[in-house]
Amino acid sequence: MEGDEMLKVGIVGSTGYAGEELVRMLLNHKEVEIKWLYSQSYVGEKYSKVFGNFFKIVDSTCVGGDVDELSKEVDLIFTATPQGYCSGIVNEKLLDRVKIVDLSADFRIKNIDVYKEWYKLDHKSPEFIAEAVYGLCEINRDKIKDARIVANPGCYTTASILALYPLVKEKIIDVNSIIIDAKSGTTGAGRGTSLANLYCEVNENIKAYGITNHRHTPEIEEQLSYGANENIIINFTPHLIPMNRGILATSYVNLNGEKTYQDIKSIYEKYYGDEYFIRLLDEGVYPETKWIQGSNYVDINFKVDERTNRLVVISAIDNLVKGAAGQAIQNMNIMFGFKESEAIFQVPMFP
Amino acid sequence: MEGDEMLKVGIVGSTGYAGEELVRMLLNHKEVEIKWLYSQSYVGEKYSKVFGNFFKIVDSTCVGGDVDELSKEVDLIFTATPQGYCSGIVNEKLLDRVKIVDLSADFRIKNIDVYKEWYKLDHKSPEFIAEAVYGLCEINRDKIKDARIVANPGCYTTASILALYPLVKEKIIDVNSIIIDAKSGTTGAGRGTSLANLYCEVNENIKAYGITNHRHTPEIEEQLSYGANENIIINFTPHLIPMNRGILATSYVNLNGEKTYQDIKSIYEKYYGDEYFIRLLDEGVYPETKWIQGSNYVDINFKVDERTNRLVVISAIDNLVKGAAGQAIQNMNIMFGFKESEAIFQVPMFP
Amino acid sequence: MEGDEMLKVGIVGSTGYAGEELVRMLLNHKEVEIKWLYSQSYVGEKYSKVFGNFFKIVDSTCVGGDVDELSKEVDLIFTATPQGYCSGIVNEKLLDRVKIVDLSADFRIKNIDVYKEWYKLDHKSPEFIAEAVYGLCEINRDKIKDARIVANPGCYTTASILALYPLVKEKIIDVNSIIIDAKSGTTGAGRGTSLANLYCEVNENIKAYGITNHRHTPEIEEQLSYGANENIIINFTPHLIPMNRGILATSYVNLNGEKTYQDIKSIYEKYYGDEYFIRLLDEGVYPETKWIQGSNYVDINFKVDERTNRLVVISAIDNLVKGAAGQAIQNMNIMFGFKESEAIFQVPMFP
Amino acid sequence: MEGDEMLKVGIVGSTGYAGEELVRMLLNHKEVEIKWLYSQSYVGEKYSKVFGNFFKIVDSTCVGGDVDELSKEVDLIFTATPQGYCSGIVNEKLLDRVKIVDLSADFRIKNIDVYKEWYKLDHKSPEFIAEAVYGLCEINRDKIKDARIVANPGCYTTASILALYPLVKEKIIDVNSIIIDAKSGTTGAGRGTSLANLYCEVNENIKAYGITNHRHTPEIEEQLSYGANENIIINFTPHLIPMNRGILATSYVNLNGEKTYQDIKSIYEKYYGDEYFIRLLDEGVYPETKWIQGSNYVDINFKVDERTNRLVVISAIDNLVKGAAGQAIQNMNIMFGFKESEAIFQVPMFP
Repeated sequence: MEGDEMLKVGIVGSTGYAGEELVRMLLNHKEVEIKWLYSQSYVGEKYSKVFGNFFKIVDSTCVGGDVDELSKEVDLIFTATPQGYCSGIVNEKLLDRVKIVDLSADFRIKNIDVYKEWYKLDHKSPEFIAEAVYGLCEINRDKIKDARIVANPGCYTTASILALYPLVKEKIIDVNSIIIDAKSGTTGAGRGTSLANLYCEVNENIKAYGITNHRHTPEIEEQLSYGANENIIINFTPHLIPMNRGILATSYVNLNGEKTYQDIKSIYEKYYGDEYFIRLLDEGVYPETKWIQGSNYVDINFKVDERTNRLVVISAIDNLVKGAAGQAIQNMNIMFGFKESEAIFQVPMFP
Repeated sequence: MEGDEMLKVGIVGSTGYAGEELVRMLLNHKEVEIKWLYSQSYVGEKYSKVFGNFFKIVDSTCVGGDVDELSKEVDLIFTATPQGYCSGIVNEKLLDRVKIVDLSADFRIKNIDVYKEWYKLDHKSPEFIAEAVYGLCEINRDKIKDARIVANPGCYTTASILALYPLVKEKIIDVNSIIIDAKSGTTGAGRGTSLANLYCEVNENIKAYGITNHRHTPEIEEQLSYGANENIIINFTPHLIPMNRGILATSYVNLNGEKTYQDIKSIYEKYYGDEYFIRLLDEGVYPETKWIQGSNYVDINFKVDERTNRLVVISAIDNLVKGAAGQAIQNMNIMFGFKESEAIFQVPMFP
Repeated sequence: MEGDEMLKVGIVGSTGYAGEELVRMLLNHKEVEIKWLYSQSYVGEKYSKVFGNFFKIVDSTCVGGDVDELSKEVDLIFTATPQGYCSGIVNEKLLDRVKIVDLSADFRIKNIDVYKEWYKLDHKSPEFIAEAVYGLCEINRDKIKDARIVANPGCYTTASILALYPLVKEKIIDVNSIIIDAKSGTTGAGRGTSLANLYCEVNENIKAYGITNHRHTPEIEEQLSYGANENIIINFTPHLIPMNRGILATSYVNLNGEKTYQDIKSIYEKYYGDEYFIRLLDEGVYPETKWIQGSNYVDINFKVDERTNRLVVISAIDNLVKGAAGQAIQNMNIMFGFKESEAIFQVPMFP
Repeated sequence: MEGDEMLKVGIVGSTGYAGEELVRMLLNHKEVEIKWLYSQSYVGEKYSKVFGNFFKIVDSTCVGGDVDELSKEVDLIFTATPQGYCSGIVNEKLLDRVKIVDLSADFRIKNIDVYKEWYKLDHKSPEFIAEAVYGLCEINRDKIKDARIVANPGCYTTASILALYPLVKEKIIDVNSIIIDAKSGTTGAGRGTSLANLYCEVNENIKAYGITNHRHTPEIEEQLSYGANENIIINFTPHLIPMNRGILATSYVNLNGEKTYQDIKSIYEKYYGDEYFIRLLDEGVYPETKWIQGSNYVDINFKVDERTNRLVVISAIDNLVKGAAGQAIQNMNIMFGFKESEAIFQVPMFP
């Protein structure tokens, strides 16, 4: 973690699961140096005591205090915190000095009323919402390049939007028919202690939660609406799965007219054929979370149901990588002109 | 396992997971004696060697050979085998002697062409299809009483049909809009050895399978069609979950007109309010598989999504109990006039 | 939960895992009625909201307040609480009215200094230590019959002592050589929220803890010392395993002189041959926790290592049943002259 | 996988878990090109169909046929096969062309009678046993440099020997007192289909196996005997844990005389202080498998039990990395003068 020419970054919320994953992956980055690791709960503690995997690898101690002051030491800040934090620290002066990749929802939603309604929070810096770029790299790559604030997408939303974007864009589906049934590993629930996330409560169990009101719903709707150029309302239902990592999203949509597998495959190829991190699987092979574990890949495939003229689309990501830290680094790479896959080219770990 | 007045039963396929669960639960039955345990793979082996939980509890040895001959010793046979078996052994003579609860699909589907199409099998005794009763106890209780052959429903189908039956019966939903996204523990895949079911392949993974063509689809369709009195075609997508037991089915349907939670709750109560094994949870509480583990309960709840006027229904069962052995015993209890909950009243085990 | 002739019991700590298991099993008891469910954290809440498995089965609401007052309604109190609680409520008047089965360590250890040293607590009612009976049913059955206070053994200790008791009693091993390496499912850590017990921290992980200083050590030592009639010091190392239930204890001891498998088997049979809940497995078959899951059984087997003249003994229990609630009920059955297996005869659930 | 100056390697047994891990890690190697992937079961199939994680990453097809012929295309062969394979292919001509890292047991044990006794196999090329080097890198680094055949150590053995080597070498323990209780994730059982390794059989279960006769026993004994310069016999008991990766070995030894934590720590530091892949944890912090998951690290710590004058040593590795593929690459790096950590410096993945 040294070097003069290196891009210097700071991580706020470094002791959550996404923060930890940022550190793990940034250690592989040839052009980045982690300058400080900020944590509310562990100030003054060795980072390698909080996460034993970094023993003998990361020697830093968690810092706290004035982020504005700390921002002077870095070129970019990752905020891997609950909502309400990042919007509370940004201001013109700060943005003169550093760029920000915010892993929370603060700058994901353009309509401030929608933000208030779903997050039950007043937005602390609405004046920056307009310029913030939604950091779904494969869709917004060009805008990301010059952004000062990148709103890193949510985990469910990344898996969902990438699965459906080409379909709404090409208008081959009924946009009023979208239903997304998503399943997530438990790292998605964060590292905070709670009864619901205890081992014995999650293990050997599956449940739906946030039915009809999960906060990722408006985020998916907004982005798909941009793609469709019309207002889209969806059903989104997340489920908690007894595994650590991974999201599988199963999307159901009504096709406009009859389409073959190949018709639809060409559309996906048009949008994603050159994308490094999106893998359109071979016909008949469907995404499984284990095949993308620990990596920044998005695996997608689909099946036409001729009996109902519906399309079933399956997409899989690692929620901590493409759904959080990996995509945040991908955004940074785009913002600073690094190779887009730097530090996040990692072969998925199996098993 | 003795007694003169006891009902005598035999179990074919006793060394699969469903067969084992039948034995476990029947041991609690006050009026039933297990006469023999039939197994293709373990003939001559101590049953308690195949399943160590029965050590010092079950002293029997697995039998093989001529089921017709063995049928003379019993009053009822459970066939917990792959499809094609039960239809191969039934005949008038056999049915004069014994009743049959078949846990395979052989007698679930009335339309023999549908059976052939989805199961890729010729039916070996089509002449008995008409009289066989579909053993979904809460729906077909009266017919089950006098049945000679009961076709015990599939696991996914039980969870799915019970969730949707009152809705189609009362015609409050668009029957063309039914989408069922189901998730099952791995006992559903059986005890046969296969790469896909190895621990390291299932653990830390989730995948969809049988997309648009899982064999439980026509079974759900047929039963819901009876309820609706019109032909219903659905989308059904099962997923494999890294846990042993439990099915959670998340169903999405479009409401005909606006309905409140209470409107719909009254409909469920009309059908299930007196049902011992169906639990309509309190508003805002949704089924989780851990709350019904090891028991014959079906937990159901739902939420109206006013934004899309869709209904999301969640149902949970233990696939080995209400989805297999428990319901088979419930059927037996109904057929022989025993208390319906005998041997299958068991408080779910948590955690 | 009614009946005039029924034994009335109250459960303090009813909202922990052991308390919940007590309720689950007592519901099967023909002669017992649960009068109240005491909970510090959930006073006034429906018990079936705390544990959804009891929905439509248990209608009670958690009570709090003065246990002394509540004791007037019952014949026996189970205290499934942290240490320091039970010793704080017992007194002569209370014991005139009710018997107590304490699932904590308060009355397990006769030497008060040892208690203080290992538990870092002053004992609040040392005057009752002498009369309290250590409730390891298979060893102390006769004393339990007349006890007013039964100290229900710890989970690790039950698995460990039962494995080694016949060996020390018959003096066939070097009592200075005892090493116990134990592995426990995570329910053993309780239902309190803590970072260490979060799903993602326990899943896909194994660790040792309490190395050389786990509190079950002196309890094992004391009981084995009674058996050996000499002072025994052991090494005991527990490990946390990613599963819900079950303890496997692997014990290593040096044999005094050469012994065959059969020599040692006869000794175990002498002590446990008639014990309902202890299963001495067939030669070559070793305990696995799945074979006793959900049951009160203790499975034991061993192997002589001729190369080192050591004996390796394997024992398995369900920590929540024989290691807590099941044994507590077994103790109650003995104390009140019920059939010893009443309510706790349950076939282990597999898988 | 191209390049002229690159070292060319072939992998036999490439479709097992260890073979897959070799591929995953070698893809990060700057100086190595995988020339062919040999597989008995999947000849002619796309490697990325066998392991979906390699989709769009590895384009190769599995080869079969004459290994001798294939050996002409490479500089080194990894044999990740069952025992009996490698000893069947080595000969002078082959070794003139290529070096071999054998992940099986064929060349681990110098005494051919011991090999026969424990592996029930006749050795097919005993003439090469003497020159083969036991590839425990931290112990045998110098010999490995010039070896033609490296016998890559077993997974349990790596965790066990590294934990105990300094202690026997420095003669601070009673070499007759060594007891190793080891716990392994299920990848250790391989990818072959078997009832015992099905998800539902392993999940929620723990068992000991190979009690007193596991084949890694003589391997540990031989290496520790070299260290001690006297014959050592041990007790070794492995256990199967419901997790994918990781081994935790808990070793118990009697100290010769009194020793403090610091005394012993200095000894470990003397041997391992400069070792890149061995991490001697801080006092009071004990190894957990999650902290080394996916990495080549070995975490070690220990505790002195003053009450019994025993030492409890805990060591953890990832069985597929330091216990198989990672160490194999480490050996290759040493043999060919590459940076020892090349391709296997990977931060452990958490969670």
